Amino acid sequence: MPETSRVPAFEGFRLSVAMDAFRQSALREIMARARGEDFISFAVGTPGTDLLPLDDLGRVTARVLASGHQVLQYGLPSATLKKRIVELMAVRGVDCREEQVVLTSGSQQGMDLLARLLLDPGDAVVLEEAIYDGIQMAVRGRRPRILPVPSDPEEGLDLDALEALLDSGEKPRFLYVIPEGHNPMGTSLSPERRARLLDLARRHRMPIVEDDVYGHLGLEGAVQPALRAAEGRWVFYLGSLSKVLAPSLRIGWAVVPEELAAKLAALKHAADIDTSTLAQHVVAAYLDEGRFPVRLENLRAEYRRRRDAMLDALERHLPDAVRWNHPRSGIFVWAHLQKEIDTTSLLERAIGEGVAFCPGEAFASGDPEPVRRSMRLSFADTLPERMDEGVQRLARALAAERAATPPRRARARAV
Amino acid sequence: MPETSRVPAFEGFRLSVAMDAFRQSALREIMARARGEDFISFAVGTPGTDLLPLDDLGRVTARVLASGHQVLQYGLPSATLKKRIVELMAVRGVDCREEQVVLTSGSQQGMDLLARLLLDPGDAVVLEEAIYDGIQMAVRGRRPRILPVPSDPEEGLDLDALEALLDSGEKPRFLYVIPEGHNPMGTSLSPERRARLLDLARRHRMPIVEDDVYGHLGLEGAVQPALRAAEGRWVFYLGSLSKVLAPSLRIGWAVVPEELAAKLAALKHAADIDTSTLAQHVVAAYLDEGRFPVRLENLRAEYRRRRDAMLDALERHLPDAVRWNHPRSGIFVWAHLQKEIDTTSLLERAIGEGVAFCPGEAFASGDPEPVRRSMRLSFADTLPERMDEGVQRLARALAAERAATPPRRARARAV
Repeated sequence: MPETSRVPAFEGFRLSVAMDAFRQSALREIMARARGEDFISFAVGTPGTDLLPLDDLGRVTARVLASGHQVLQYGLPSATLKKRIVELMAVRGVDCREEQVVLTSGSQQGMDLLARLLLDPGDAVVLEEAIYDGIQMAVRGRRPRILPVPSDPEEGLDLDALEALLDSGEKPRFLYVIPEGHNPMGTSLSPERRARLLDLARRHRMPIVEDDVYGHLGLEGAVQPALRAAEGRWVFYLGSLSKVLAPSLRIGWAVVPEELAAKLAALKHAADIDTSTLAQHVVAAYLDEGRFPVRLENLRAEYRRRRDAMLDALERHLPDAVRWNHPRSGIFVWAHLQKEIDTTSLLERAIGEGVAFCPGEAFASGDPEPVRRSMRLSFADTLPERMDEGVQRLARALAAERAATPPRRARARAV
Repeated sequence: MPETSRVPAFEGFRLSVAMDAFRQSALREIMARARGEDFISFAVGTPGTDLLPLDDLGRVTARVLASGHQVLQYGLPSATLKKRIVELMAVRGVDCREEQVVLTSGSQQGMDLLARLLLDPGDAVVLEEAIYDGIQMAVRGRRPRILPVPSDPEEGLDLDALEALLDSGEKPRFLYVIPEGHNPMGTSLSPERRARLLDLARRHRMPIVEDDVYGHLGLEGAVQPALRAAEGRWVFYLGSLSKVLAPSLRIGWAVVPEELAAKLAALKHAADIDTSTLAQHVVAAYLDEGRFPVRLENLRAEYRRRRDAMLDALERHLPDAVRWNHPRSGIFVWAHLQKEIDTTSLLERAIGEGVAFCPGEAFASGDPEPVRRSMRLSFADTLPERMDEGVQRLARALAAERAATPPRRARARAV
């Protein structure tokens, strides 16, 4: 990359070329603005604040802190926690060993570390056209070529498009996928698409980075096993307790082939030395108590209630022209406005009404045009009884935006 | 870098070129081996385990967890914590604003983020010949050219050598320095060397990354103000509570010019989303209590006792041929064996005796030869009354190693 592309950022002093490619998350800004007592946020992928296990974690933390000074010290990754994680993996159908588990500070760090492990500048990586902005933050700093593939809001990743891409001779370093509770689209991949995806990965020797942070949040009975359950070599798995226990613990993990685990652990050490020893002990002790399966059951039931409340409210208040899907796992609904509404502009108006969502544009891995009229609605952090009010506010914002948006022909003339 | 330099690591699948340059910390392995009930470790840069404020943090954590669910959620960086950090900076003589503070997961993450912000492959970075292995882990993944400059074990960084390097036309992207309690050498930079260093930085428009994690640990009265106190533009400051409160909180920070703070915060978000909201609240509440200055005073007094106990024991038990320095801040003594002893080989024997240190080689930024006969001895995590026993074990290992090492001429003949 030519020297001239560098942005002079500091008294003529130039930053790394990688900073040019780096793009900040739009969500952070929305999060900063969309707050307040009465505010209703469908914007951010936070778990339900009221559902965070304050009492359980308070009790366990007190017990762990009473166990001795060592929990405040640096430490090697907890073997006990790794054992518990291996058990959680079994729940997702995955048979793995502790030696394959690398602890991370949330799954975001797992993405960042895998990007460092796998990507050099110019390498190709496959991302869906609309995909979690965090994976984009993780890979863009490596200056890859991003190869976008489309997804549809009912079935997810378009395997025909992926196959055509791979057959064209591209050699992507990896593909990132969220098979359950897709962020932002809320989709679950069908067994057929999964089988075909794994087949393509093996055939083209292309690792799949499987983000399974919503894998325990099936809303309609058992979800399918993780992709890694069917393919232990070419699927690198990322898990996290942020969505199912508490984000502020910052406990995530990667499961990778054993010969890569030591390298990934060394990258982790270089990135921030340790994941908090205290948090590791707290989580291990919490999981030891055996209440987690019941917690998951309750969470799924509550998120099902919130999803249904949101879907009902959307049905009641949004105009016919708006379409949305019915997620079977995770915490997101993906809605699509069929008129000439730009959701980034709509967001301004919605925040004025006291509600926020995340505009599709924030998730665009390539051309933002296909997702500009889409939005991600999270139902996780809104009480069911507040859902109707939130959607009404959204409907008001939409009506006002439509009234203010000239129809296509008039706009075309105005240009 | 040529494609052929890549290591085939996984079924013929190749990892990033950056992984070739990456070097794992030797300390991690020592840490894993040097454990056990009776073991005495001078090896790792951990604070005194017995000095970690278990009761204070237990009380504060209980209070914070009782304050509401929000402390378990994702969150924006705590404004209260940033205020308290600005106050801590004032103690180090630095006048800064909250807008210049970026929270990190320990200062190690600060190094990693600054390396991303500043370095492209092939860029030059100045490191001392023996320097904290963490900065090396942070920069090597960016594949820079490392320009080593010597230091002496009494006065630290060799400013003549640095000046000659800069006058030769090199344009380093930054220099990393630990002005107080140097890791591994335990040195403090004199006021004269500091002034000259800042002058060189300004003249050559070269940022200095100042690692001040031992800046509150002056062992003989007040230490000098941080470098950043005298230069607010060209000094990027890294602080941490790991050495003075508790490592497992993972609370560190960077203080940078305001126009770089947003970029650094965005890189932080990409790396791991948040530094634990809970830890941020706990630390803010702890600092609010106002006991931290007293804790620091007690810590300094105790580390002074431990340092003196170590220096006395070294005097008593090590042979005349060994030299060591007298640190005025921080937690490290740097010792130098004047005979043909390789400290990496000595370490094996020492671990057998039940004591560990960190061999100089672990800190070599370039040619390991100049540091191969040096070792870093940390006095922080050993009770004063155990110090003599630890040093006796070291002396036994050294005597055995000397007995087993043929004199130079004999070895030369054997080759």
